[in-house]
Amino acid sequence: MKIALAQINPTVGDIAGNTRKILDFIGRAEAAGTHAVVFPELCLTGYPPKDLLLKPKFVDDNLRALELIARSVNNIHAIIGFAQRNANPIGRPLHNAVALLHAGRIVSQHFKTLLPTYDVFDETRYFEPGPAELRNQLVRIGDTPVGLSICEDLWNDERLISRRLYHQNPIADLHAAGAEIMINSSASPFVVGKHDFRIQLFSAQARQFGRPLVYVNQVGGNDELVFDGNSVVFDAQGKLIAQAKDFEEDLLIVDLAEHGSKVQGFKGSREGSPALGVPHSNSPLLTTDHGLRTPTQGIESIYKALVLGLRDYLRKCGFKSAVLGLSGGIDSAVTCALAVAALGPDKVVGVAMPSRFSSDHSIADARALAENLGVKFQIVPIEPMHKAYESAVYPQFAQTAVRGADPTEAENLTDQNVQARVRGGILMAFSNRLGHLLLTTGNKSELAVGYCTLYGDMCGGLAVISDVPKTTIYELAEFINRQAGRDLIPRNSISKPPSAELRPNQTDQDSLPPYDLLDAILHRYVEEEKSAADIVKEGFDAPTVLRIIKLCDRSEYKRRQAAPGLKVTSRAFGFGRRMPIAQNYQQTVD
Amino acid sequence: MKIALAQINPTVGDIAGNTRKILDFIGRAEAAGTHAVVFPELCLTGYPPKDLLLKPKFVDDNLRALELIARSVNNIHAIIGFAQRNANPIGRPLHNAVALLHAGRIVSQHFKTLLPTYDVFDETRYFEPGPAELRNQLVRIGDTPVGLSICEDLWNDERLISRRLYHQNPIADLHAAGAEIMINSSASPFVVGKHDFRIQLFSAQARQFGRPLVYVNQVGGNDELVFDGNSVVFDAQGKLIAQAKDFEEDLLIVDLAEHGSKVQGFKGSREGSPALGVPHSNSPLLTTDHGLRTPTQGIESIYKALVLGLRDYLRKCGFKSAVLGLSGGIDSAVTCALAVAALGPDKVVGVAMPSRFSSDHSIADARALAENLGVKFQIVPIEPMHKAYESAVYPQFAQTAVRGADPTEAENLTDQNVQARVRGGILMAFSNRLGHLLLTTGNKSELAVGYCTLYGDMCGGLAVISDVPKTTIYELAEFINRQAGRDLIPRNSISKPPSAELRPNQTDQDSLPPYDLLDAILHRYVEEEKSAADIVKEGFDAPTVLRIIKLCDRSEYKRRQAAPGLKVTSRAFGFGRRMPIAQNYQQTVD
Repeated sequence: MKIALAQINPTVGDIAGNTRKILDFIGRAEAAGTHAVVFPELCLTGYPPKDLLLKPKFVDDNLRALELIARSVNNIHAIIGFAQRNANPIGRPLHNAVALLHAGRIVSQHFKTLLPTYDVFDETRYFEPGPAELRNQLVRIGDTPVGLSICEDLWNDERLISRRLYHQNPIADLHAAGAEIMINSSASPFVVGKHDFRIQLFSAQARQFGRPLVYVNQVGGNDELVFDGNSVVFDAQGKLIAQAKDFEEDLLIVDLAEHGSKVQGFKGSREGSPALGVPHSNSPLLTTDHGLRTPTQGIESIYKALVLGLRDYLRKCGFKSAVLGLSGGIDSAVTCALAVAALGPDKVVGVAMPSRFSSDHSIADARALAENLGVKFQIVPIEPMHKAYESAVYPQFAQTAVRGADPTEAENLTDQNVQARVRGGILMAFSNRLGHLLLTTGNKSELAVGYCTLYGDMCGGLAVISDVPKTTIYELAEFINRQAGRDLIPRNSISKPPSAELRPNQTDQDSLPPYDLLDAILHRYVEEEKSAADIVKEGFDAPTVLRIIKLCDRSEYKRRQAAPGLKVTSRAFGFGRRMPIAQNYQQTVD
Repeated sequence: MKIALAQINPTVGDIAGNTRKILDFIGRAEAAGTHAVVFPELCLTGYPPKDLLLKPKFVDDNLRALELIARSVNNIHAIIGFAQRNANPIGRPLHNAVALLHAGRIVSQHFKTLLPTYDVFDETRYFEPGPAELRNQLVRIGDTPVGLSICEDLWNDERLISRRLYHQNPIADLHAAGAEIMINSSASPFVVGKHDFRIQLFSAQARQFGRPLVYVNQVGGNDELVFDGNSVVFDAQGKLIAQAKDFEEDLLIVDLAEHGSKVQGFKGSREGSPALGVPHSNSPLLTTDHGLRTPTQGIESIYKALVLGLRDYLRKCGFKSAVLGLSGGIDSAVTCALAVAALGPDKVVGVAMPSRFSSDHSIADARALAENLGVKFQIVPIEPMHKAYESAVYPQFAQTAVRGADPTEAENLTDQNVQARVRGGILMAFSNRLGHLLLTTGNKSELAVGYCTLYGDMCGGLAVISDVPKTTIYELAEFINRQAGRDLIPRNSISKPPSAELRPNQTDQDSLPPYDLLDAILHRYVEEEKSAADIVKEGFDAPTVLRIIKLCDRSEYKRRQAAPGLKVTSRAFGFGRRMPIAQNYQQTVD
């Protein structure tokens, strides 16, 4: 059987646009002589559609689009993700569904059983699992009985998952019902390292049930989430036999019969069409019709995810260009390089906004970066606005200020925040006046401990690197320079001590522990949900651990108002980490 | 049986503090000679604990606190909400639980069956329903078999709920098992009109099963949510026989035997203690030991909810005072009056920030308000900062500005936003320097259509009235003046046309339809999830409806960065309305 994996990049809510794209891919798959074409989960609505699903008209529109697509499907079998109403008057109102379309009609519908409701996923907010009596319902493609499942349905392997959240195993049900091929329609967002785990998991499932497994993932950025594509096919022995592109749309065509699967006798309904299947390969990771490739790993995958997430956020929001502040530091340099990779240098504007505390090298490093990347560069000193605040606003505090003393901490903090907010105001003026989206340049480490100014450097429509720890920012910078074959990001921006330059001779390490230590503690606290006591037991200094945890908890109010940030770790701030603000949980180390 | 309803105001995460409060209320209930004392849902953690529940140590701490409380419980039966681990290795890791404590130990534990996962609720993110075999497990208080349930367990009445989300009916199970009294431990947040519905629903349940019903609700503000208390008791005929205070902590004591319930023969375990039960009353709504009261309705309940929500947000975040901008308009006036009611006039600072476009009456109205309310008042003109932006930033746009033409829309917009952001910067400087929490004064109507400036008038730690439509703001202003017996809010602030005063002779109605029309359309779109076509069918002008819907959808990016806002309607922006930003759902009216 020849199957096309339609790894598309839908836009959330754009039912009309997604329909056009689906029809286009169906046409291409038909032209390539495939028997079936498989699309990602909820591809008609884009994933995640979130509360658009609560609009009855939105659900109607997606159902109407499915019918329209069905009418144009002829010989091929098309498997399309959509939102279906729950026919049972009791229970949540929708199903997360796929339909099999063939010969001008909707042949059958299949409902997701396992509904992820953790991290960024909210599926039980909308969906009811498919009724038990439908769980062993197979489809026929030609003569072959096929088991259809949706994303999470595949993720319940007790050998690999630390805690099984679900009692059902839909894949086992499909196997028991006699499925000869397993097809999974998915929308699985990128997290660094996750694709390796997927391969391990899916391979184990294919091997366990002795059936080939076709996994089709969505690609593209939707708000915080980046879907990496990386659709894959395994043979009945669990061997990876094909892999689609990462971070790009793709139509991957695989002939399962060529791979010694159990589906030996399948003849197909479009015999005589040219053979576009992947060549057999002994490499564990894979060739496709697009040529030999090794899967991107680690830092490169983060880089690609951020570039795609940035590009798609602008495109899907209707922006064509971006502006950002260039401080001469590494965070804004990396963000600028990512923006150039996503949009092209002519679509990026860098603005340096020196203050009276800025060092000469800040402007020089910012300018060097802009020149290296070829982006427009402007210098707008903040002194006139800063001075205006000093003379027109600060005296208003006089009645309560500490007289005759050294500047108090509150005065210092206020003055630093005023400078950061003037910069935010300037950048937003550029955005409003010239139509650029403002990119926020803060990293995960500073967002974690609140080392950032709300309405200041936190201004922006998208926080490009807010899920990247500072130590990983350095790796990204080195990767970007290595990839370019030269120091796009000035060596000085990488090597100098990080500083906000909001008062004389300030460095980040005046206020924070060294970043490698900070990141090590934050990783344990945020991503691993370890307690202060657990972290101290690992050998970290107790007062430092308690201080960082307190800073992190106390900064929740800033993060609540942060720009959406592209998720690359297993636990990003934002939608997938829902913490109360007005709370008083006290950690101890005893 | 004499039951104490311990309507407490816990702080989320503050297990130690909540434990002290629980012990205090147990002591008071014992001193009053009650047989049982009932606390709200998850009272040990505070509701909603959100992702604190993902911290294993947090769950440990709450379990340890429960044991500690159990050891100090003697004759009384205490029913306490807490988070319990799921003993089954498969399924979500926790149960939403109540324990019955008596004679120094945990007698039994009971798990919530119906887990709300809609609007602001995320319970299936954390909890597994109690196992089916435990659903008919009763407790004994004295000789009486009692059925314990938790919040949503009571909300599955097909006669009153438009769509039943759940197949189970835990109350029917408890009834079938022989419960003589139904007790429900709850954390049900305020929505205007909801308490009337609760009374209807609970009365119907008590009548249906012929059992008295004791409902104990949490009180207090936790971030966006305000819990109104209003704990109630119904007799076996469904008659409301007692109601606790609204928007305040309370210990309401009811003797069910005095109310002709089925529990006639109950003798109690503390005979001889003084009778503190409520006097029998024929009034449908109720007397308590605190004296005669009518329940607050409509606008008064919104007022009380906002005052409590504001007070608790500051208190639980550790703030003692608030600052806000006073424009002379009605929104900031109402917000200021609410702040004074919550904190006292000496804890509120109002700052007027006139621009070159401000009218004389703006300052006069702001000053009059401040004087009426007795709050500190300062005037900080924005001209010096505005001028600095004009001379130091605007020329930077020159290369792309439209020359020789009238000011473009983008220039206008930029200049207006700069002014709003200078104001935000000034207010944040006051906040940073003097330790006041900045209150945002925007209403729901303008937040809906994006008639507000991100990092400008949207600055602030709490958006007090961001879930109150503009038309309701007028009602609130009249209510505040009526309650005071004089025009605390200057008549002129109420009667003048609303204006942002960011350019000459500007009024809101230059950009928006009249507020009564805007609010009518927004209510249908946001709260009722109606489509453009549905709204037009009701007689609204199609281009206006489409324009408002588009403005609303396009403003999602602003709301994503908005301060948490106190929820008073059935659908507030924020946590309970999860919309994608980069989306392209196109509504039509055909």
